[in-house]
Amino acid sequence: MKKYDLIVIGSGPAGEKAAVKAAYFGYKVAVIEKQKKMGGAGVNTGTLPSKTLKETALYYSGKYDRGLYGIDRVLKEAPSIEHFMQRETLVSSAVEHEVLQNLFNHKVDIYHGSAVFENAHEIRIVGSKEEVICSEYIIIATGSYPVHPANIPFDFDRVHDSDSILNINRFPKSLCIIGAGVIGCEYATIFGTMGIEVYIINDKKKILTFLDNEISTELVKQMQENFIEVLFDTKFEHIKVPPHSHLPIDVKLNTGEILHVDMLLYAAGRSGAIEGLNLEKAGVCIGERQTISVDAHFKTNIDNIYAIGDVIGFPALASTSMDQGRVAVSHIFKTNDLDSLPKIFPYGIYTVPEVSMVGMSEEQAKAANIDCSTGISKYKNIPRAKIKGLNSGFLKLVFRKEDLVVIGVHIIGDLATELIHYGLTLVEHKTTLMHIISTVFNYPTLHDLYKYASYDGLGNLSGRKIKKD
Amino acid sequence: MKKYDLIVIGSGPAGEKAAVKAAYFGYKVAVIEKQKKMGGAGVNTGTLPSKTLKETALYYSGKYDRGLYGIDRVLKEAPSIEHFMQRETLVSSAVEHEVLQNLFNHKVDIYHGSAVFENAHEIRIVGSKEEVICSEYIIIATGSYPVHPANIPFDFDRVHDSDSILNINRFPKSLCIIGAGVIGCEYATIFGTMGIEVYIINDKKKILTFLDNEISTELVKQMQENFIEVLFDTKFEHIKVPPHSHLPIDVKLNTGEILHVDMLLYAAGRSGAIEGLNLEKAGVCIGERQTISVDAHFKTNIDNIYAIGDVIGFPALASTSMDQGRVAVSHIFKTNDLDSLPKIFPYGIYTVPEVSMVGMSEEQAKAANIDCSTGISKYKNIPRAKIKGLNSGFLKLVFRKEDLVVIGVHIIGDLATELIHYGLTLVEHKTTLMHIISTVFNYPTLHDLYKYASYDGLGNLSGRKIKKD
Repeated sequence: MKKYDLIVIGSGPAGEKAAVKAAYFGYKVAVIEKQKKMGGAGVNTGTLPSKTLKETALYYSGKYDRGLYGIDRVLKEAPSIEHFMQRETLVSSAVEHEVLQNLFNHKVDIYHGSAVFENAHEIRIVGSKEEVICSEYIIIATGSYPVHPANIPFDFDRVHDSDSILNINRFPKSLCIIGAGVIGCEYATIFGTMGIEVYIINDKKKILTFLDNEISTELVKQMQENFIEVLFDTKFEHIKVPPHSHLPIDVKLNTGEILHVDMLLYAAGRSGAIEGLNLEKAGVCIGERQTISVDAHFKTNIDNIYAIGDVIGFPALASTSMDQGRVAVSHIFKTNDLDSLPKIFPYGIYTVPEVSMVGMSEEQAKAANIDCSTGISKYKNIPRAKIKGLNSGFLKLVFRKEDLVVIGVHIIGDLATELIHYGLTLVEHKTTLMHIISTVFNYPTLHDLYKYASYDGLGNLSGRKIKKD
Repeated sequence: MKKYDLIVIGSGPAGEKAAVKAAYFGYKVAVIEKQKKMGGAGVNTGTLPSKTLKETALYYSGKYDRGLYGIDRVLKEAPSIEHFMQRETLVSSAVEHEVLQNLFNHKVDIYHGSAVFENAHEIRIVGSKEEVICSEYIIIATGSYPVHPANIPFDFDRVHDSDSILNINRFPKSLCIIGAGVIGCEYATIFGTMGIEVYIINDKKKILTFLDNEISTELVKQMQENFIEVLFDTKFEHIKVPPHSHLPIDVKLNTGEILHVDMLLYAAGRSGAIEGLNLEKAGVCIGERQTISVDAHFKTNIDNIYAIGDVIGFPALASTSMDQGRVAVSHIFKTNDLDSLPKIFPYGIYTVPEVSMVGMSEEQAKAANIDCSTGISKYKNIPRAKIKGLNSGFLKLVFRKEDLVVIGVHIIGDLATELIHYGLTLVEHKTTLMHIISTVFNYPTLHDLYKYASYDGLGNLSGRKIKKD
């Protein structure tokens, strides 16, 4: 039986980084991957594909640079669905190749097949060839999968989950999305940007409930301008797929209305991918929604078994998952370079427009009884945004009144997911508005938003503000 | 005679921000502007125009997204010079309008004409109407202008300075640029991106001498791939403009070679715009290259007269100039919100590709006897860059070996001028590589460059590095 220092189950962002880090420090590592392709949802079905499709949709639409530069660039011909998917396929395969290369470079053994625990140290690999390997430590990084409720008639032709939507063989004429979480909103704006009529069925009063209210409201407003209708406080009652594809799918709502749409995407939940692992043989406890419970170092209830990434649930981001892998390895092998995941980290939502946040929303700060105020700057007032024709979006700072310390940054607009990192350092270092206004930013850049939001915040406090829209 | 608390001479980035800030705090302020348009070089001839032309050139070229998205966007027709200049004109006029609006909103009085000192408190305005106004304090923010050496036969038709290049009425078939400073390099890459053959005559061994060597070398490499030839250690001896415009301009070099080019841009120096101010009447001392010497609070040798922006020389950036204005006002009126310009600030060079830096270059650190090492990450290895098809460029961290503190950040590539601001906080807060690797960045973003450069740096120290290109 082959013996390892570490077995990692799953080669997604979490598993890859954990395996490579352990190998980098000289340990003998195996990775078990069930899918044909390495990289998990981060590479193949989740993170990178939707972000790439977003860029493709923006490129095709031409909407955001039309009329700016005196003469327009136009698509040579109407894009087919194959054109639309081409970049996504290329990027996924390039990054999958990198994952493989990274594992090879670090001399990690790769096993293809399903992992089944025999006990807390031995794992049977069930693939084209069956074998048992053992290890001192095991990390579970099996990710998550889209749930399939019984009342959704998935046929993966017109009714899709967030995996199968990547395999559509024609553009939908119209699309109903169930669920207004990150995945639902991202796909809504991808298809909306392509000029396709989209409905989002959302059972709450707000989309992306963790966002600052002003940001969430602005996103809905911009969605509406982009062929997307968001239904609030609404549930579906029944979905009827007709036998012929030229007839619409009927989605009956609890409001009595019926939507007639061409395709449907169910994006209302994912579950931890633990089925078949035989976790009970290892004694690992299972939590809610099929997730595995872990401590701050990502250790399960069993001393030598760790779990990281989507399989442990929140926040289920590729970014945090990678670092969970690195933290777990740091504890297992006492490399002492990474004790725990930082408490302050950004969220990025790759909608059109992009949204990103770090720290507290205004509502959270008020709920925590923090005496706070805010400052806002709009893209359209910033020279860099004028050059690029960016007419919408804003940056909002939430700060404590007593000492002007920034406790939250919220951005909706172009490059929000990049710009937020400066904001991350503001919250990390408890930076004050006075420090921001005394900072020199390159000019012209979008980072000027930080300076003008600070001036706006100071103006709000002093009452000496000169109003401008 | 009208009496003010503050007279500001010049309405460029420095003057505007100074005037508006003083007015914001309730002081009576006048601005004197000699040009028809408000905003100075920042708006009309320098900062924004070249940055806008750069975006236009990138949009037209299509080079950086060709073949990425399955089907290409192409220009509807070949752009004329009018098309090319259209966005630049629009952006300049929009920002000029904002400057005017900002001054109006703050009830700043605007005088059109040349300012002539009568004494340290009184200024004669010579315009269509002549009058004298006086003030307790005066700020000189008159900017700079391109120098015109006698051996350059400027005709503003084929032989240009960096102002008149904005008025060309046709694309040059080829262009010789004298001077490899920021302006020369920016215009070289703008025209190079448009597919125009460009030569840069550079009397030094390096372009942009303040840059880290590796960055400067990479910029030259990418220029060469972009129709630009950089001549090092070269001077021109004689420029001959023939009588007919279909004949080439001959530029004789000290190497014996002769360049035959269609147009010439002289971009080898600017001088402080102090002519006609009658500074001697106020007793203000003049320094090198017609600049005004000031102390750390931007006060001249005369107690009530300050000077800010390009007219005081280095660094002559719009970004720093604005804050010089704010600092000066803070001292004049003791608003106590901004004591001095921060010692650490970024430089942004809006070439194709963009370059930005903060803190020390590797060469500076070594010259200062700091025991340092570096870490590099390449765009092409970062998922976000793969999505956008960014195949070149890198980020370089310079850090102290003893405590792994980052002391310099250098970026060449897409969005470098934005990405540098996270690096600015690293240098400001003396952040270590260990802190960077324990930071969670949105994924996928270009900010991942910071994490991978940190790993590279740690790998360089440990010797445990796994080489990958």
